[in-house]
Amino acid sequence: MKAYALLGGPQQLWPPKIEALFAKAQADKQLLVGVDRGLLYLTEMGLSPDVGVGDFDSLTPRELGKLEKSVPDLRYSNPVKDLTDSELMLRLVFQDYGVDQVYLFGATGGRLDHFLVNLFMLLKPAVRQFAPRVIMIDQQNRFEFFLPGRHQVAAQPHYKYFAVAALTGVHDLNIGAARYNLQHFSAAGPQIFSSNEFRQGSSCFRLSFAKGLVAVIFSKDLAKFAPLNSHQKKAGS
Amino acid sequence: MKAYALLGGPQQLWPPKIEALFAKAQADKQLLVGVDRGLLYLTEMGLSPDVGVGDFDSLTPRELGKLEKSVPDLRYSNPVKDLTDSELMLRLVFQDYGVDQVYLFGATGGRLDHFLVNLFMLLKPAVRQFAPRVIMIDQQNRFEFFLPGRHQVAAQPHYKYFAVAALTGVHDLNIGAARYNLQHFSAAGPQIFSSNEFRQGSSCFRLSFAKGLVAVIFSKDLAKFAPLNSHQKKAGS
Repeated sequence: MKAYALLGGPQQLWPPKIEALFAKAQADKQLLVGVDRGLLYLTEMGLSPDVGVGDFDSLTPRELGKLEKSVPDLRYSNPVKDLTDSELMLRLVFQDYGVDQVYLFGATGGRLDHFLVNLFMLLKPAVRQFAPRVIMIDQQNRFEFFLPGRHQVAAQPHYKYFAVAALTGVHDLNIGAARYNLQHFSAAGPQIFSSNEFRQGSSCFRLSFAKGLVAVIFSKDLAKFAPLNSHQKKAGS
Repeated sequence: MKAYALLGGPQQLWPPKIEALFAKAQADKQLLVGVDRGLLYLTEMGLSPDVGVGDFDSLTPRELGKLEKSVPDLRYSNPVKDLTDSELMLRLVFQDYGVDQVYLFGATGGRLDHFLVNLFMLLKPAVRQFAPRVIMIDQQNRFEFFLPGRHQVAAQPHYKYFAVAALTGVHDLNIGAARYNLQHFSAAGPQIFSSNEFRQGSSCFRLSFAKGLVAVIFSKDLAKFAPLNSHQKKAGS
C-alpha cells in the first residue's frame, strides 16, 4: 500500500490535477492522509481521508467536530513537542500502517521554514531509514531521497532537469551516465549540483555515495513564466 | 554602500512594492545588480542596473544587445564552471565593489534546486565569510545568516514567526529570551527549530553557537491564504 499525504503548503504550488490524483488513489485503496490544513483540503475535495495529523488549532470547533466524525484515525500532535506534524505523520504511515511509499504534497513553498522542516526531518535518526520511500512533489519539483550505496536513478516524464543535493556532509559522491558527471566528491556540509540533465536517449543516471543523505530533485521550468506579466511583455516590444 | 540584487526566481514571490524599493535604492546611490533574468526584470522596471551577471543564454541577441549597451558592468558566467551565477555575483559585489550588505530578491521558489543553490552557496569556504552580510527576502520570508558567536537578533516588523536553522552541523546552539528557548544543542547535520516567536514586548532574542552556519528565517502567513479559493470557501459554508 502507498500513502498519499497532503500537507498545508500553498495550493498554488500543487501539481495540476491533484484532486483527480487523490481520487484515483482512494479508488485504488491507497492510504489518504491529511496533515493540518491539508486534512481540510482533502475533505473539501469530497474525499474521505483515512488518517489526519495535526494540532488543528486554526480550525473552528464546528470544522473540527466534522473531522472527528468523518476521519477514522485522527491524531492530535502537541505543538510544543519535539516532533513536527509531518514527522509524526511519517512515523505513523510507515510504522503503524506499514506503507511501502509515501507521496507528499503541499510540503513546499510559502513559509520556507515549513519547507525546510519537511526536508530536514528526513535527516533525523528515527526518520532517515524511511527517506528512500518518500517522494515530495509540487508544481515544478519532485524530490526523491537516497541512502548510501549504488543507485540507478530513473528519468521522470516531463522533468527536464535534475539536481543532486547532499543534504548533509557526503563522502565519495559519484554521478555517472548523465550530461554532467562527477567523481569522488566529498564535502563536510550540504552541497548541490543543479541543472544536470539525462543523456539523450538515456532513461537513467548512476548515483553512488558512501556516506550521507542525498536528494535528487527533478525540476522543470513553467511555460507560463515566459510571457507572465506586463514586465515581461514589455521585454518583447 | 549596499547592493540590491534581483535574481531570476518567480515574480509571484517578490515582496510587495519591489519596484519602489529598487527605485529608492537607485536614488540612494546603492548598487543595483541583476542576475540572469533578474537583470531583464530590472531594466523592464525602467531602472538602470549597475551590474549584470549571468550566461544570458535564454535571451535573444536583440535583448542582449540592449543590455550590453545599457549595463556598465556585464559579467558573463560560464555555465559549465563550478561557480553559479549567484555565487559569482556575491563575490563580485563584496570583493570588487566592497559593499557592506547585499539584499537578495528572486532567490527563492519555483525551481527548488535554484533555491537550495542560493542557500547552500553560503556554506562554501570562499563565500561563508560574507554570509552575515547577506539578507534574502521574498513575499513571506526573510533570511539572515550568522557565524559562530553570540548574537542579539532583532525582531523584524510584520514577521510573526522565526525559525533557527542550522544549515550544517552545529555545536552548542542556544536560543534565549524567545518564546521557546534552547540550550546546548548540538547535531551532526542540518536541523531546524521553527514557529518560534519573540517574547511579548521584546525586540530581540539571543542566539549563540560555537560551530556551524545558522540561518534565522523570519516568516509570516499570507492573509489571503485563509479565504483563498473555492475549496476554502466551501469549508466555511
